[in-house]
Amino acid sequence: MENFTFYAPTYFDFGKGAEEHVGTLVRRFGGSKVLLHYGGGSIKKSGLYDTVKRCLKEENIDVVELGGVKPNPRSGLVYEGIELCKKEGVDFVLAVGGGSTIDSSKAIAAGACYDGDFWDFYCKKASIEKALPVGTILTIAAAGSEGSMNTVITHEETGIKTGAASEVLRPRFSILNPEFTCTLPPYQTAAGATDIMIHVCERYFSNTTEVEVTDRLCEALLKTIIHEAPRVIENPNHYEARANIMWAGMLAHNNVCGVGRVQDWASHHIEHELSALYDVTHGAGLAVIAPAWMRYVLKINPHKLVQFAERVWDIEPQATEEETALKGIEAFESFLKSIGMPLTFDEIGADEKDAELMTGKLLRSKPTEGNYVKLTADDVMKIYHYAATGEM
Amino acid sequence: MENFTFYAPTYFDFGKGAEEHVGTLVRRFGGSKVLLHYGGGSIKKSGLYDTVKRCLKEENIDVVELGGVKPNPRSGLVYEGIELCKKEGVDFVLAVGGGSTIDSSKAIAAGACYDGDFWDFYCKKASIEKALPVGTILTIAAAGSEGSMNTVITHEETGIKTGAASEVLRPRFSILNPEFTCTLPPYQTAAGATDIMIHVCERYFSNTTEVEVTDRLCEALLKTIIHEAPRVIENPNHYEARANIMWAGMLAHNNVCGVGRVQDWASHHIEHELSALYDVTHGAGLAVIAPAWMRYVLKINPHKLVQFAERVWDIEPQATEEETALKGIEAFESFLKSIGMPLTFDEIGADEKDAELMTGKLLRSKPTEGNYVKLTADDVMKIYHYAATGEM
Repeated sequence: MENFTFYAPTYFDFGKGAEEHVGTLVRRFGGSKVLLHYGGGSIKKSGLYDTVKRCLKEENIDVVELGGVKPNPRSGLVYEGIELCKKEGVDFVLAVGGGSTIDSSKAIAAGACYDGDFWDFYCKKASIEKALPVGTILTIAAAGSEGSMNTVITHEETGIKTGAASEVLRPRFSILNPEFTCTLPPYQTAAGATDIMIHVCERYFSNTTEVEVTDRLCEALLKTIIHEAPRVIENPNHYEARANIMWAGMLAHNNVCGVGRVQDWASHHIEHELSALYDVTHGAGLAVIAPAWMRYVLKINPHKLVQFAERVWDIEPQATEEETALKGIEAFESFLKSIGMPLTFDEIGADEKDAELMTGKLLRSKPTEGNYVKLTADDVMKIYHYAATGEM
Repeated sequence: MENFTFYAPTYFDFGKGAEEHVGTLVRRFGGSKVLLHYGGGSIKKSGLYDTVKRCLKEENIDVVELGGVKPNPRSGLVYEGIELCKKEGVDFVLAVGGGSTIDSSKAIAAGACYDGDFWDFYCKKASIEKALPVGTILTIAAAGSEGSMNTVITHEETGIKTGAASEVLRPRFSILNPEFTCTLPPYQTAAGATDIMIHVCERYFSNTTEVEVTDRLCEALLKTIIHEAPRVIENPNHYEARANIMWAGMLAHNNVCGVGRVQDWASHHIEHELSALYDVTHGAGLAVIAPAWMRYVLKINPHKLVQFAERVWDIEPQATEEETALKGIEAFESFLKSIGMPLTFDEIGADEKDAELMTGKLLRSKPTEGNYVKLTADDVMKIYHYAATGEM
C-alpha cells in the first residue's frame, strides 16, 4: 500500500424527501445567492425544480438560474455561468441533475474565482486553488461527481474532452433521493451502472500490491451493482435497488476504494475520445471499451484479471490463469449485454476509421495511457480495433 | 434502506512519515495552542513524542501536556483535562495514542466548551453541540475513534462505562502511520482486530432489508481482517498487513458501512459491563461476548447469521439454516482462538456471580438491549451464562 491522503468532507443527505432540506443546507454551508444550474426539462416535469425554488425562497436565498446543461457538458455554458456568477455576485453553485450538471457546476465554481480562462485548469496550465462552494441534488446514479473532486468538460472549439480535479471541488453537500432516479430510461440506467462499475475497475486494476482492504471494497461495490442493476432494468421503480445503486455510485468515485494504490484510467480516457467525437453516452462507450481493454491487457498482465474473475464473477480456477481471467471477462460482457449495453463500435455508431484521430487526441501530450499496462498509440489502436471488429 | 445522513469530514494522512505533518495540520485546522494528550511511555519510547513536540514547535504552536490516559479511559483525567484547557486557553486537542486517548480527548474537547459537568453528555442529560477541534495521531488499530463521532468513558465513582456521540466530535485530521502499530504485542493486536470485526458486526446484524451495498462493505472489511490479522500475529512487523488493518479499522467505525440501517450494539454494551468491572481489554471482552451473543440470537433470528456464514466464512449451505449459521459462528470462534483471543469468562478472569450486577447496570435505564434481537434482562443473563459455562 502506498502513502495517501483522503479528505471527503461532503455532507450527504440520503433518502425520500431529502430535497426538502436544500434551503437549510445551502444556508448551513454559507450560501446566500446561488446559481441554480440544471439540464433540460426533466427536473421541471418531476416537480423537483419547483421544490428547490420554494425551499430556497423559504430561506431567503437569492437565485440566479442557468439551465441547458447537455450530456458531455460543454465549455460554452461554463463560460456563460462564470460570467453570470461574477456579474451577479453569486456565492454558491447549486447543481440539480446528473454528473454533467455537477461537472459543469464545478467548472463554473472554479472559473468564478479565477481571473484567467477556466480552460487553463483542464489543459493543466493552472491548478484549482479556490472555488465557490458547490452543492448538489443528484438525479442520475452514475458519474459519482456528487462526492468526488473531479470534473470533466468538453471544449467545443477543439473537441477536447478532459478532466480537472481539486480538493476544493468536493461538494459541500449532496442530496441523494433515489426516487428521482426512477424515471431514468433503462438504457441510461444501465449506462450509469456501467460507469459506476468502471469507476471501480479503474482503481481495482493496479499493480500496487498488498491492498487487500481496497480490493475487497472494490469487489463489494461491483457485486452490489451486479445484484442491483438487473433489478432496476426489470422494474425501473424499484426504490430499494435504486437506493443501493445510488450510494454505490457515490462510493465508487469518492476514492474511498482507491486510496493507497496506483490507478489505471485508460478505459475512461480511451472512451472520452469516443464520446467527444460521437456524443455517445459515456457509460455506453465504457461498455464497449472496458472489456476490449481487459481482453487486450490480459495477454500482458493477467494477475488482477484472475482475481476479478474469481472474486467478482465467482469463476472457478481454470487450467491456466489466462483461461480463468477470460471467463471473468466473458461473464462481465454477458452481464453488460443482459442489461442492454452495447459491446461494439457498430452499436454506438462509431467507425474504426476514426481510431487514428482518437488515438492522436488521446496521446496528444503524453507517450502512454494507463498504468496497469502502459499503452502506446499502437496498443490503443488495437483496443479500438477490437471494439470495432471483435478481433484482437 | 432507511433515510440517512453521512458526514465524515476528517482529513486522513496515511502512511510512513505522516506524523511529520502534525504541525502543519494543527495549523490548517485552526490550532495555535494545543492540549497534547497521551497515555503512558510508549510514545516516548518510539520517538513519536519527540517528533510531535518538534513539529509543533516548528509551527510555533504552544503546547500544554496531559499524559496518563489508561485503557478504558476514566472520568478523572477528563475533568483534569477540561480544567487545564479552560485555564490555559487551549484551542485544539491533539490525541496521540489509541482509542482510549482519542475518546478521552473528545470528552475533554466537549467539556471545555460546556459550563456544566461533562458527564451530562454521557448520561444523556445534555447533547454535545460544541467542542474544541480534535486531531489525532493513531498508534493502535482498533477503536476507530480516529474517524468516528463516538467516545466512551468510564465514570470512576459509579463504575458506569458509557458512550456519547456528536457530529462535532469527528476529528479534524487523523494521522495514521502503520509503523507505530508494529510494536503492539500480539494479544493487544488481536484484541484490536476483534474490536474492528465487532464494529462491523454491530452494523451488519440488522433487520433492515435491502441494504446490499452496506452488507457487501461490511463483508469486505471482515474478509480483510480475516486475511490480515493472522499475518501480523505471525509477524508483528508486517507493515502491509498492519496498514490494511489500520485503514479497515477506521472504515469499520466511521459508519460508511452502517448507514441506512438499524444497528445492533448489544455485544458492545454487554461487553462494556465486563470491561468496566474487570478492566479487561475491550476487544478480548468482545471475543468472549460476541460469539455468545450470536449463539443466543441464532435460535430467535437466524437470517443474517446465515448470510454471515455463507458470505464471510464461505460455509456451504447445510441441511438447515440453523446448521449453516452455526458453522459460521464456529468458524468465527476458531478464528478468534487462532489469533490468541479468549472465548470464556475464565480466560479473562470474569465470574458468573457478577452477571446479575452487570445486567442490572446494563439495563439501568432501558427495558431491552440491542435491535437485531431485543434482549431482556433474562436474555442478557443467558448470554453471560453461556460465556461463563459454554452451556446455553
